[in-house]
Order: sequence, then C-alpha cells, then structure tokens
Amino acid sequence: MKTALLSIGDELLFGEVVDTNSARIAARLADEGIATARKLTVGDDEGEIAAALEELARGHDVVIATGGLGPTDDDVTARAVARATGRRLVLNEEAMGHLREFFVRLGREMHPANGRQCLLPAKAELIPNPTGTACGFHLLLDGCLLIFLPGVPTEMAVMLEETVVPLVLGRRGDSRRTRTWTLTVFGLSEAEIGARLADVDRSRPGLTVAYCVEFPMVQVKLRVTGEDEEALTALLEDGAALVRERLGGHVVAGDGETIDTTVARLFRETGMTLALAESCTGGLIAGRITAIPGSSAYFLLGAVTYANDAKARLLGVPQGLLAETGAVSAEVAKAMARGARQLAGSDLALAVTGIAGPEGGSPDKPVGTVFIALANRAGCSAKGYHFRGDRDRIRTITAVTAMDWLRRRLLSQ
Amino acid sequence: MKTALLSIGDELLFGEVVDTNSARIAARLADEGIATARKLTVGDDEGEIAAALEELARGHDVVIATGGLGPTDDDVTARAVARATGRRLVLNEEAMGHLREFFVRLGREMHPANGRQCLLPAKAELIPNPTGTACGFHLLLDGCLLIFLPGVPTEMAVMLEETVVPLVLGRRGDSRRTRTWTLTVFGLSEAEIGARLADVDRSRPGLTVAYCVEFPMVQVKLRVTGEDEEALTALLEDGAALVRERLGGHVVAGDGETIDTTVARLFRETGMTLALAESCTGGLIAGRITAIPGSSAYFLLGAVTYANDAKARLLGVPQGLLAETGAVSAEVAKAMARGARQLAGSDLALAVTGIAGPEGGSPDKPVGTVFIALANRAGCSAKGYHFRGDRDRIRTITAVTAMDWLRRRLLSQ
Repeated sequence: MKTALLSIGDELLFGEVVDTNSARIAARLADEGIATARKLTVGDDEGEIAAALEELARGHDVVIATGGLGPTDDDVTARAVARATGRRLVLNEEAMGHLREFFVRLGREMHPANGRQCLLPAKAELIPNPTGTACGFHLLLDGCLLIFLPGVPTEMAVMLEETVVPLVLGRRGDSRRTRTWTLTVFGLSEAEIGARLADVDRSRPGLTVAYCVEFPMVQVKLRVTGEDEEALTALLEDGAALVRERLGGHVVAGDGETIDTTVARLFRETGMTLALAESCTGGLIAGRITAIPGSSAYFLLGAVTYANDAKARLLGVPQGLLAETGAVSAEVAKAMARGARQLAGSDLALAVTGIAGPEGGSPDKPVGTVFIALANRAGCSAKGYHFRGDRDRIRTITAVTAMDWLRRRLLSQ
Repeated sequence: MKTALLSIGDELLFGEVVDTNSARIAARLADEGIATARKLTVGDDEGEIAAALEELARGHDVVIATGGLGPTDDDVTARAVARATGRRLVLNEEAMGHLREFFVRLGREMHPANGRQCLLPAKAELIPNPTGTACGFHLLLDGCLLIFLPGVPTEMAVMLEETVVPLVLGRRGDSRRTRTWTLTVFGLSEAEIGARLADVDRSRPGLTVAYCVEFPMVQVKLRVTGEDEEALTALLEDGAALVRERLGGHVVAGDGETIDTTVARLFRETGMTLALAESCTGGLIAGRITAIPGSSAYFLLGAVTYANDAKARLLGVPQGLLAETGAVSAEVAKAMARGARQLAGSDLALAVTGIAGPEGGSPDKPVGTVFIALANRAGCSAKGYHFRGDRDRIRTITAVTAMDWLRRRLLSQ
C-alpha cells in the first residue's frame, strides 16, 4: 500500500512552524508496518492544494492531509478538496451537530465563523474531533483514500489514533502485522549503542533495529513483521532481552513507558515518598513528576529555590556554607536535599543546583556545572556533572539525569 | 522566483526525525522575501530522488535539497543527481582536498568510506562545508538551480548562511522583501479573532493576515512584501496597531516576543520580584519563568505544594481552612499566595490550586476546576476557572493563564 502525507499551511512554508504532524503520522504508520512513500507540503492556497491532491492521488493508495480546516479565511482545504474531487461544498449536518454539542459542553456561544468549518465536500465521511471544533473527513478520489485532519497537533493525534489508523488498517486488508517495541536508553551515545547492538538484527531474521535520538535519550526500536502473533512476540522478547543484556542499566524505559512513567511506577510499587529541591532546573523536575496522573500519592512537595536566600530560608542551607562554597557545590546540593527531606517528611529528597547559563559561569565552575544530591534516612550522596549545550539543553539533561537517579535508587530499594 | 525544498532521508519518512532543516531554510528565505512554494520529502532511494528532482526542476527556479551526502551506503543523493541530470559521477578534486584538510585539522585518519563523499556529478560547483565532511554542490537542470546540502542541521545551517543565501539572492536579482510580524493572542478563540480582524488585510493592500493556533494561544501573522523598507515597516506598524486596537489586552506578546519573555521584560522593567506557589501545575509555571535567562534577578522562590500538609507547612495555609473548603478553593489559593509572599519577601506572589485530573474531580469541583490568586503589598485577589481537556491541557492553560495574570498586573504597576 503506497501512502503519502500532505501538510497544508503557509506557516510551514514560511518556516514559522516545524512540521511535527507529518513525523507523528509517519511514525505511527511505521509502527503498523505502513511505509510513507513521500511527504509534501503546500501553502494555504486552494489551487496549490487541489493540484497536490490530484498529483498524490494518482500515485498512492492513501493520502493523509493535515491543516487548513480552521474557521478563518485562510483555511481553504475543504474548498480545495471540493475542487479536486469535483464535488460541491455542502453543510455537513453531522459536523454541525458536533460543533453545537462542543460549544454546549464548553458552556460558550458558538461563533458564527465556526459554521464555515461545517461546509464539507458532498458525501464526505466525517472524522470526529473529540477535542476541538474542526472535524476531519475522508473520501475517495480515483480509488485513492483521501483523509483530512486539522493541523492542531493534539487534536490531530487523537483523531489519528481513534479513527485514521483503524481506517487505514482496514483498507490495507492483509493480515501481516508490524509490531514495534521501543526501549529508551540514557547515558550512551547513538554510535556506542549502534556498535553494541550491531549484530542484533543480523543474527535474528525478521527483526530490524532502528535508532532515534530524543535528546538526551536514544530510542532503540525493535520491529518485526509477520502473521503469527505469538512468533512476533517471542522475537520481540528475545530482541529486547538481548538489548537489555548489552546495554544494562542504561535502558531506562521499556516499551510503552518513558523514564518518567517508569519512575512513577517504581514510586507506586515501593510506596516511597518524594520531595524535591531545585535550583537551575527551576521546577522542570517537579513538572515531570507531576505530569503523571496519580503523582500526588508519592510527591509531597518541591522547593524551587532560585535565590540563595530562598535556599537558606526554605531549606535551611547554612548562609555560611553558601558563602564558602558558592550555591553550586556538592555540599549545598546535599544541604538542599537534607533540608527538603526534613521539610516534607519524605522518604527520599532529591536536589539539584547548577549553572544553566548563558550567564553565571566562571573558569572554576563553567556554564553546565551541575550537582545532584539524593537524601534518604540512611544518608545523602552527591555528584558533580559538566553538561554541554545551551540553557535549554543543560536544564533538560539535568532533569533527565535526576529522573535516572530516582529510577536507580528506587530499583535498589 | 519559485523556490522548492527537498528533504531526503528514510528517517524522515519513518517519522523518527522531525524535519527542522526545511523549516530553517524556509524561514531564512522568508527573511529575504523569498517564498517557498512547496516542500517535498522522499526517502534514500536513487530513483525516488531523481524523479523528485526532475519534477521540482520543471516547476521551480531554485530547488534546495538536504540529506543523503554522508559516507554510508544509504547516502545516494549524488548518484540520483547524476541520473536526473544525465551527468557522470567524477572524483571532485576540490572536495577531496577539503576532506584531506578536514581530517588533518582533526588529527585523525580519514576513513576510506569518506572518499565516496567526493564522487560528485561532473561540473558541479562545490559548496564548502567548514564544519563537516560532506561538501554541498550546485548545478543547473533545465534552467533550474539545484542546490544540495548535507542533512546534519548544524553543518547545513553554516553552509546555508555562507554560500546558499548569497547564491539564491544573486539569482533572484530583484529587491523585493517579505517581512512578517507575529502577535500572540490569548483568551479569544481563533474564530473570534478572525472575525474581529476580517477587514484588516482587505482594507490594507499589500498586507496579509494569517492565523496559527499554538494552544492555548493563537498567533496572528502580519505579512507584507515590497521594495521600500520604510513603507513595509509603516504598513506593519499600521496593521499591528489595528490588531491591538481590535483585540485589546488579549495581545499578550508582540513580534519577537512570547508571553514568557514579555513577562520577563516587565519584571526587569518594573524591578518587581516574584514568588510562586503551585499545586496542580506542579512546577510548570516556575519552569516557564526560569527558562528565561536572567530570571534569577526577579524570581526568588517557588513552592510546589502538592500535598495538603506541604501547603500548611511551607506556606502556612491553616489546616482548618484546608479541611473546611478543601485544597481547591479561592480561600486556599489566597492563603497560598500570601504564604509564598511572606516566605520569599517578594513584591508579588502568585498561587494556583486545582484539579488537573483524570482523578480527583467531584460534581461540585469537576476536573479542570482551578483557582489562581495573586498577592501584593496591598492585598490579594483570586478567581476560579473551569478549564477543559486532559491533564496536559489543563496544566498548560492554567500556566498560561497565570503568566497572563502576571503580565496584566505588571502592566498596571
């Protein structure tokens, strides 16, 4: 089955928005063993969109398009589809019903401009949008299945999962399945991981290994294709076991998990509780912990102590120590962790202090210098790091390193 | 001048890598007033690449391609160009000289595989790569200028700036420029904004208005094209003034700013200091504040008080109040804000408490119920909200609403 993606939007052609939608769709299709043959991007221009659709419909079995379904004048996808398919635009009652219901649920008046979003090509099949105003739709052009989704990434993602993937799989109609397991690795470079796993797929026919850098982690994707569900599972289990054997504790999350959900699961399993004291990460670690539903069961409090004074007042870090070693030191990290643990009455307390830059570095402690400390009943340990990159990257790798500390500590409980 | 971009790489079609290169090139060209007519992505396949080149060369004056110039077997761009242009691949002595020099500077042996990177189509003009092994090149096909760059984003960016932009500008030979201003709007739907601004571009020839949803905000993009720099600026200023007039305080950031950088600027300008007390956002607001360099000048501390006990201990919220109104109430939000302000000794303190879900809602206080409070020397005010969506969206819109409270308060100082 030949599949193409079409991204629609002037903002993409102006480089104002990076097209994550097409990557997400392609990745999701790849998980099902469906390769994307090409991706095309055009602007919010009726003629350009119509031409692109005719062009792609000729060479492909399925075309998935995103963007241009909004309520404003520059949203012209539905008109372009009508032109390309020779259909009229008609008021789609189902879409209108959806819109009315959406605004009732919201407790808001529907804006008349939203009515435009219900003008769809005649006989288009609706694709519900549970989280927004723009419904998607699909129809056939010369035997090619054309699918249209809004460009808002979160709305698109829900519709992709709920309607589009089953629709495309139904069209494929063969019983071969591709299954992908993704293992997340932290603390090894892509080159090192590749070298350690070089023989994994060679020695296992039917298994392929791919790598994807998601800074600061690397995802190892194990892919198998076939009809026999049990054989596929066995092959994936075998491959995953080998990856874990070769990469050891660097595998921070198994398939279907992230490092954050892994840490959440370990907290639930061990019944431990947590307090945080953050300086350079400024709440990023607390933000990751609390992004997981149910985190209130084990996360008691976080102190974002940016100023020295806050470190002293909230966490009881001695002013003398701050003056002596500076706020970025192993001693201060330890004092922060101990202080946070005492303040919260938690089992564990993790603290970070560092220099995220771009200002604040010195020859002695350059930008990227970070100390992490972890306290429990038995004591407190700390370690220093020198991370590279800009402010964003330093904050991100510090937060992930902190999550990995928690993961390793909880595993050893 | 019609320009197209071609991105080459299997990793793009598998969705394993998001294509930032094409966005970067498009944005850089847009800065020079050169619109990108379409973007196409194909895999590492000689036939596909050659077909794409022939196709794009027919309809465009310039095609800029990235990817597939590396040293491994799956890098086939040069071969595809040779096929599409009917030229032979020959050893390019200039490229070879560059490679030798590159490895001498690195103090490393050249790997034999790198030699492949010097096999380029006959009579191609070299584009130097100061930071990597893969040189780019350019040549003509039926009057269309084809430009090839490596896919490594940092290497590509240098070559784009040093060689490609001057090359394309030289080819254009006209002096028209396109300029874009982006205003960020919060608190109005895209439909409402579109309706209020419907006549803005109609009444101003040369100005176009486009919209882009960045949940929970909407970006309004004003675009002008012409030769006279002063006239363009005047048109943009006029358009922006009208947008601000129509949307009032909902414009939360001007061109080149975000709501977060606007708040940061206002803190610097007013000299005010800030403390935060977060419950349901769990550090997200602190994370946004501290993502901006220099935030340590005004951000003193943040308390992520997830547990009731933490609200009482850290912020002095009375246990009786927590028992009486529950942790999610206007009274508790106020007590949190007052407590944070006292703890930090800051001018302002903002607090949020709410139910992000998916658990924890009740008929009385459903998921999405959020209270925000802001305390200063003069007193403390609070307001309740009912946000919709999943945990992520509720947390995000709460954080942005909080940023908007800070923005409005600082503006009124």
